[in-house]
Amino acid sequence: MQIPKGLAPMVPSTEDALAAERTKAGFSVDAMHEFIVDSDMRTKVSKVEAVMGKEPETFSLRNVYFMSRQEKMDHALQIGTRLIELLKEGKVTGDEISIADMVLDINGPFGLHRTMFIPTLQNQATAEQQELFLKPALNYEILGCYAQTEIGHGSNVQGLETTCTYVPETDEFEVHSPSVRACKWWIGSLGVTATHAMVMAQLIVKGRPHGPCPVVVPIRSTVDHQPLPGVTVGDLGPKFGFNTMDNGFLLLNRVRVPRVNLLQRYISVSSEGKVSRPANVDPKVAYGTMVYVRTQIVRNMSQVLAKATTVAVRYAAVRRQFKGPDSALESPVLDYSMVQYRLMPLVAQNYAMFATSQAFLLHYQQSMQELDRGNFAPLKELHATACGLKRWTSDVAIAGIDTCRHVCGGHGFSQFSGLNEFYGNAYPNIIWEGDNYVLSQQTARYLIAQVRALRAGKPVAENQTTRYLKRHMPGGQLQALARCSVEQLMGSAGAQLDLLAFRAAAMAASLVDAMDQGQSWNQSLVSIQRLCDAHSDFIVASYFRQHLATLAATSPLLPHLNKLATLLFLYTLEQHSSDLFRLPGEAAFTPLMVAEVERALARVIEDVRGQAVPLVDAFGISDFRLNSALGRSDGKVYENYLQWAMEDPLNQESGAVVRKQWFDKYYKPVLHPKSRL
Amino acid sequence: MQIPKGLAPMVPSTEDALAAERTKAGFSVDAMHEFIVDSDMRTKVSKVEAVMGKEPETFSLRNVYFMSRQEKMDHALQIGTRLIELLKEGKVTGDEISIADMVLDINGPFGLHRTMFIPTLQNQATAEQQELFLKPALNYEILGCYAQTEIGHGSNVQGLETTCTYVPETDEFEVHSPSVRACKWWIGSLGVTATHAMVMAQLIVKGRPHGPCPVVVPIRSTVDHQPLPGVTVGDLGPKFGFNTMDNGFLLLNRVRVPRVNLLQRYISVSSEGKVSRPANVDPKVAYGTMVYVRTQIVRNMSQVLAKATTVAVRYAAVRRQFKGPDSALESPVLDYSMVQYRLMPLVAQNYAMFATSQAFLLHYQQSMQELDRGNFAPLKELHATACGLKRWTSDVAIAGIDTCRHVCGGHGFSQFSGLNEFYGNAYPNIIWEGDNYVLSQQTARYLIAQVRALRAGKPVAENQTTRYLKRHMPGGQLQALARCSVEQLMGSAGAQLDLLAFRAAAMAASLVDAMDQGQSWNQSLVSIQRLCDAHSDFIVASYFRQHLATLAATSPLLPHLNKLATLLFLYTLEQHSSDLFRLPGEAAFTPLMVAEVERALARVIEDVRGQAVPLVDAFGISDFRLNSALGRSDGKVYENYLQWAMEDPLNQESGAVVRKQWFDKYYKPVLHPKSRL
Repeated sequence: MQIPKGLAPMVPSTEDALAAERTKAGFSVDAMHEFIVDSDMRTKVSKVEAVMGKEPETFSLRNVYFMSRQEKMDHALQIGTRLIELLKEGKVTGDEISIADMVLDINGPFGLHRTMFIPTLQNQATAEQQELFLKPALNYEILGCYAQTEIGHGSNVQGLETTCTYVPETDEFEVHSPSVRACKWWIGSLGVTATHAMVMAQLIVKGRPHGPCPVVVPIRSTVDHQPLPGVTVGDLGPKFGFNTMDNGFLLLNRVRVPRVNLLQRYISVSSEGKVSRPANVDPKVAYGTMVYVRTQIVRNMSQVLAKATTVAVRYAAVRRQFKGPDSALESPVLDYSMVQYRLMPLVAQNYAMFATSQAFLLHYQQSMQELDRGNFAPLKELHATACGLKRWTSDVAIAGIDTCRHVCGGHGFSQFSGLNEFYGNAYPNIIWEGDNYVLSQQTARYLIAQVRALRAGKPVAENQTTRYLKRHMPGGQLQALARCSVEQLMGSAGAQLDLLAFRAAAMAASLVDAMDQGQSWNQSLVSIQRLCDAHSDFIVASYFRQHLATLAATSPLLPHLNKLATLLFLYTLEQHSSDLFRLPGEAAFTPLMVAEVERALARVIEDVRGQAVPLVDAFGISDFRLNSALGRSDGKVYENYLQWAMEDPLNQESGAVVRKQWFDKYYKPVLHPKSRL
Repeated sequence: MQIPKGLAPMVPSTEDALAAERTKAGFSVDAMHEFIVDSDMRTKVSKVEAVMGKEPETFSLRNVYFMSRQEKMDHALQIGTRLIELLKEGKVTGDEISIADMVLDINGPFGLHRTMFIPTLQNQATAEQQELFLKPALNYEILGCYAQTEIGHGSNVQGLETTCTYVPETDEFEVHSPSVRACKWWIGSLGVTATHAMVMAQLIVKGRPHGPCPVVVPIRSTVDHQPLPGVTVGDLGPKFGFNTMDNGFLLLNRVRVPRVNLLQRYISVSSEGKVSRPANVDPKVAYGTMVYVRTQIVRNMSQVLAKATTVAVRYAAVRRQFKGPDSALESPVLDYSMVQYRLMPLVAQNYAMFATSQAFLLHYQQSMQELDRGNFAPLKELHATACGLKRWTSDVAIAGIDTCRHVCGGHGFSQFSGLNEFYGNAYPNIIWEGDNYVLSQQTARYLIAQVRALRAGKPVAENQTTRYLKRHMPGGQLQALARCSVEQLMGSAGAQLDLLAFRAAAMAASLVDAMDQGQSWNQSLVSIQRLCDAHSDFIVASYFRQHLATLAATSPLLPHLNKLATLLFLYTLEQHSSDLFRLPGEAAFTPLMVAEVERALARVIEDVRGQAVPLVDAFGISDFRLNSALGRSDGKVYENYLQWAMEDPLNQESGAVVRKQWFDKYYKPVLHPKSRL
């Protein structure tokens, strides 16, 4: 099916509209791209896009929106298999495969083997066990998954029900799922793929429990892929997104494995049933891995939000609705203040996330170096910050993609917008690696402990969090924030950070006061998540400014970036203006000041709108990655959108067969009831 | 695939947990159901569930989550065809078919024929035209759709590009799509089904434009369903939801239709090319239909949110995570204050929506009676309120379903939760029938005009909106609201409504002030949508209380309903506490008062949690409708969830074939690379 010839061109064209936006660019898009996206990501994305570009038949995304669940998995398997070949041929690295998954937005069935099964073996297996399991895993002679979550147990790892009981008679472990609630669930790469599962199970030796430990359980034959005896395993069905992954379930009926299958680096069971702990758990493993995974989430959230803002800003620049008062043409919707108000703060948040991603990774790397020197002091603050940032970035990204979808109007609802695919695949980030509501408690717990220590005059570690608490807690050094006008705030990054820190410190102090007066932890949970957000608002602003500080003061990028940082600051104030009214002492804002914040925000938004298209162009997302009819870099939206629709199988030859069947079976009997007789 | 025998029972069981919640019910669930859901809905739902229950093979929903797009459409067509037979047999009415669609959450390809094509003919066709088009349409001898939206034109109907040009030589109209941007788009029932389209096109006679008018265009043969000459038509592809519907596109290449095909009740073209307007457009048609459609959206949003809150509350009551300090068992997540805070206000909003739906329909019906008496005065306020309520209820429902999904943790992400299907199918409600952001301008425009009229001492119509504006505008009768303590507010429905009205009036007055000082309409759009929400907060609370006032003062339901109304009130204050600080004069809240609001809210939430399960039970949603493994009324969650997963085609015989293919094609070459040689 093709667009008929002879249609008049659209005047004004959407291509011209987008090109016109670009002529307004006040900075070099390439230079901005190099500054805002970290070099590692840029290099790897270019590399994998080049590698995949050479094999367009394998790596095509053209038909993904038409695929059924099984077709999606088939497509992901084809791509995954080819990437493993390229890995074995030395044409891509393991890291680059992760980037390829991100670029394609396809999380295929081999993913968890690489991201969870192998790292667990690297961290927790002894040398002997590495020979036994890690070596074949690295060669893909076995395929693994990481089976922790159970159908009835998510966040609470201590509550897992699967058992791993030592059987001295045979020198084996018996791994068992006692009830349906113990059924392993959500396990990526388990549904169809894995031959081995790293099962987290309650270790029981001589009737005594020793807590959850990882044990390697073969579950499918590597010869014919059939489930092994005692193993009930399958795919857990269709999901809101992530349908290229075979998340699975697993019930084990008293499955025996040799003693060596329990990973023994940190806990070891002898043939006499003696339990020992050969090594202390390296804090780098206990915390470092968790924090590292969260640095990756922060980075990924920047990337997926960038896809959405790119689509929404570009399409809003070329989509016209209603004539302006002074124009014969309909106005681009990006000229409407309500659209700007929904998109420009999101662009600023997106820039902040890219900058934060870089500054946070630096902070992480520095802390790991401290650890190597035997200094564990930075760990707790790093962990608290990581929890807060994982929550902040995933919340902003998921809500942001939804905003972008709604801004696109009805067309956001089409799969061809790309936005729904981004949304569904990114959505689990607010749940996994610690549900965002549960994580807020980790951050708050740290803040509360520091406030209490400071109040009691106890020593606290020196870091970005305790520095601001010391300075801004009631009784701290800086109290006279109300003296600063909104105009002054707009001109001073330091004053902006002070105000955000002051807000977080005031909320932390006030929560401690309430708890000291008997408010229970459970009663505090609503305040706790707000405190976590206020802390993260400060951390994000602070990392954003830290990253900007790496630019030369004369950089032509700087004025634009400062404007975005100020936009984000004002938006944070405006979104939480109730907090401003409630700041302690003279710092409390008046209604006039809040109104001034709103006006200042509106002015900055209108200002930034002028650079909106170049700003999203600088994220550097290729058309291949966007896979969106609305967000195309050439602005040729409607022709491609229509052409894509015409390619729907229902409109093709194969569809004609289906339509004929429907006509005979359904439409004809309705239209011509007598024909049925 | 079956759950293996011999697993231990879960202790405590989820069934027992849910049953225990029900023993706490402080009211009759049946009586509550009869009060909160309107009788028309109750009767029709019972009727269609009974009719469909007799034909479980046709009306089964068991496999919907496994279906591909084409399978979904096939399923919808099968159901739709059977419903038409039942209609012809007199076993269901047209209205009941709409209810069946809602119960099934399946919007099938025959939908727009009934909801748009036929009503347009009823309202805008002459008697002759009704004979020609309406009669066969009612007999399903032709199948229609309503083709208004174009790929480049959504909200702005005046901007449509499709033309309908009178050709005097042949006494015909030529209907034409001049460019790709004029392509009809999103048209329900067009993609595969319709034989006729009601095309909204710019009428052009003798070179003069007369605005958009409806013209009937045959597009597919009723004999063999093939597109007619000049017609390019197809399905517009996969969407975020609504995939049982064949939304389509349509390009017309100078298609000729007889003059009689232009609906001529309100505009008529003679064979000499004389354009006349035989009848004035009945305001009941112009406004009444729009308002009626919005009464239906308000009703539908109550229903779909009820499905989501039912699932989330029931599952939160049986899902356990982490041990409480005083318990050997893990706690139901519904006992955590953060979960309560996310769900209980939503239950209260849901009750408010059910009550509002009934009170608003009553208001609509009374206004229509006034119209019949020649009194057009109620129309504008009714329209403004309808726009606000459509926005409020759809925003709350869509955000609410998302909250319910997230509250269910990872399992919310499974299709078997049902929540994703509800979400995707309900999502368009924030966009269609006026995008929610565009609609806020309709409401605000009315409010602004009334404030200006009142200030100028001009007469205004007496209604619920002008009453509160008169009373509460600065300079109005009631200014001393700050004198009322939070405790007093909690005990007085009148004081609650006064405060909400005062807030809306203050925002309206302040917006008019800003505009009088030169703020443009475009610059006001952010304030405009907030004003619209504040107005709707008052209207919803007011309708809620009006509906409660229909209960006897001694009704045992009343204390529970009053508690929900107060919960909603406090939640509204807490969510908009910034507005409270900014109330004019002595009414402005202090930080202490806002803190008191928060504490009062927390207490009411904790109190209402005790009745949470009976409160959602009272929505009366059957398990058939829920179609959710998590929300089942018997609480037997995990066994059914696992069983459902086992029924995934990938785990069945047919899936074994696919898995074997994947093994040979993908897994084996990876596991045994030499086997490829």
